[in-house]
Amino acid sequence: MTNMATAQQVSLIGLGAMGTALAKALLAGGHEVTVWNRTPARADALVADGAKVAASSAEAMAAADLVILCVLDDAAVREHVEPAATGLRGSTVVNLTTTTPEQARALGTWAAARGIDVLDGGIMAVPEMVGGPDAFVLYSGAAAAFERYRSVLELFGRAEYVGEDLGAAAMYDVSILGGMYAMFAAFEQGGAMVRSTGGSAARLAELMTPFLHAMATLLATQAPGIDTPADFVQVQSDEFTAAAIDLIDRAATESGTSTELYGVLRRTLTGL
Amino acid sequence: MTNMATAQQVSLIGLGAMGTALAKALLAGGHEVTVWNRTPARADALVADGAKVAASSAEAMAAADLVILCVLDDAAVREHVEPAATGLRGSTVVNLTTTTPEQARALGTWAAARGIDVLDGGIMAVPEMVGGPDAFVLYSGAAAAFERYRSVLELFGRAEYVGEDLGAAAMYDVSILGGMYAMFAAFEQGGAMVRSTGGSAARLAELMTPFLHAMATLLATQAPGIDTPADFVQVQSDEFTAAAIDLIDRAATESGTSTELYGVLRRTLTGL
Repeated sequence: MTNMATAQQVSLIGLGAMGTALAKALLAGGHEVTVWNRTPARADALVADGAKVAASSAEAMAAADLVILCVLDDAAVREHVEPAATGLRGSTVVNLTTTTPEQARALGTWAAARGIDVLDGGIMAVPEMVGGPDAFVLYSGAAAAFERYRSVLELFGRAEYVGEDLGAAAMYDVSILGGMYAMFAAFEQGGAMVRSTGGSAARLAELMTPFLHAMATLLATQAPGIDTPADFVQVQSDEFTAAAIDLIDRAATESGTSTELYGVLRRTLTGL
Repeated sequence: MTNMATAQQVSLIGLGAMGTALAKALLAGGHEVTVWNRTPARADALVADGAKVAASSAEAMAAADLVILCVLDDAAVREHVEPAATGLRGSTVVNLTTTTPEQARALGTWAAARGIDVLDGGIMAVPEMVGGPDAFVLYSGAAAAFERYRSVLELFGRAEYVGEDLGAAAMYDVSILGGMYAMFAAFEQGGAMVRSTGGSAARLAELMTPFLHAMATLLATQAPGIDTPADFVQVQSDEFTAAAIDLIDRAATESGTSTELYGVLRRTLTGL
């Protein structure tokens, strides 16, 4: 096993806020880091910490067997890797750029035909959290490639391997983010509702946060309803859930705010 | 101040699972409890613990100055209180039945004309949690009535007063429940998505629960965006949020599952 004492050559393409946080974590872990960014000045602080700056992304990618990309989108990833395919042969590309599952798979197919290993990753953290106790990163692709670089990847946060299908990390990533946005949307909607009765979103947050903490813990008990529905006995019937959501809908109507969210929740949860 | 050592006469109408849990908490708190339920046998275990059973709901309501209702719905509340108005004069009715804010206000208007005080309450707990450390109950209505019976009401869980408007407790209640159902719907949808890449809802729950715990803590920082939007600087622009949700939507499409939820989240959060 590689340990923290074994310095690796690592190249990193993209020094936005997230890429910069990743570079700092690699340098703090004692690795030899070559960086490239479209605007070279973004690298200045990292150079002071020991990073090398490559003259082009192709030069950066040729400098290490482990190449990490954290750029704008899938199109930007392709712009960098396609012209550099020869230099990447035998290397492992870890793509931490946000893409769809299909885009992750398509990159893998392109890379496999050129002797390049690919891992796809989804960073479940904001840049300030990288390397801290609450950050985790989802990885999918060949298990052997993940195990080979696991100790390096763990510098970013807990490394969670979710499957061989290259699309898996992106699918878990967006599913988890969907949960976050659902919670935020319900808070936005609820805030408007309690304000109609003289309340405030600040007071709602005080009351809602501990309740959601307790309820988030119940997801594990609901998972068998999705994974093995034939064997699952619901604690709350669909009819009960539908009636409960209808009452929320009526309260939203009374408050003069939108009820669109609750209609979708009813259909998603009960099919009624 | 009333303290735990001062036994009060309390009447409780409705012995479903929740009403029974409330009765047990009152008896454990040392109060003199009169109960009534449509099916009298539900009271047997409570009688063994010291409860008295009234022959009718009107008799139960006349037996105490503090009357708690926990019945099916607003129509059932009215069925009990309307014929008993004379006996209720000077009493405080605490309605823990789930109703809409307008129904809570209408009960208050009816009661005020008859010299009856009303508090509306929303129980944020399942029956098993009543009286435990994680249960809380939202109350709205006259602050004086709340303070008079606060020590009794605290036997059910933390008593959270949310305002004079009788509709306030119900509006906070449904807003908080909306957050729970939004989280559950996103988990249901996400579970279907990760299964399309060979994953499981069980693994998704493992990863999503700690992330939602961290994100639920951010609601307080988002509250000023709802309470004082003119002074609020968004951390993440609407355009960024819309693009992030569009990516989730594309992944859902790729997985062959519904994208209806994400479209609503986008509109609710960004108006785009």
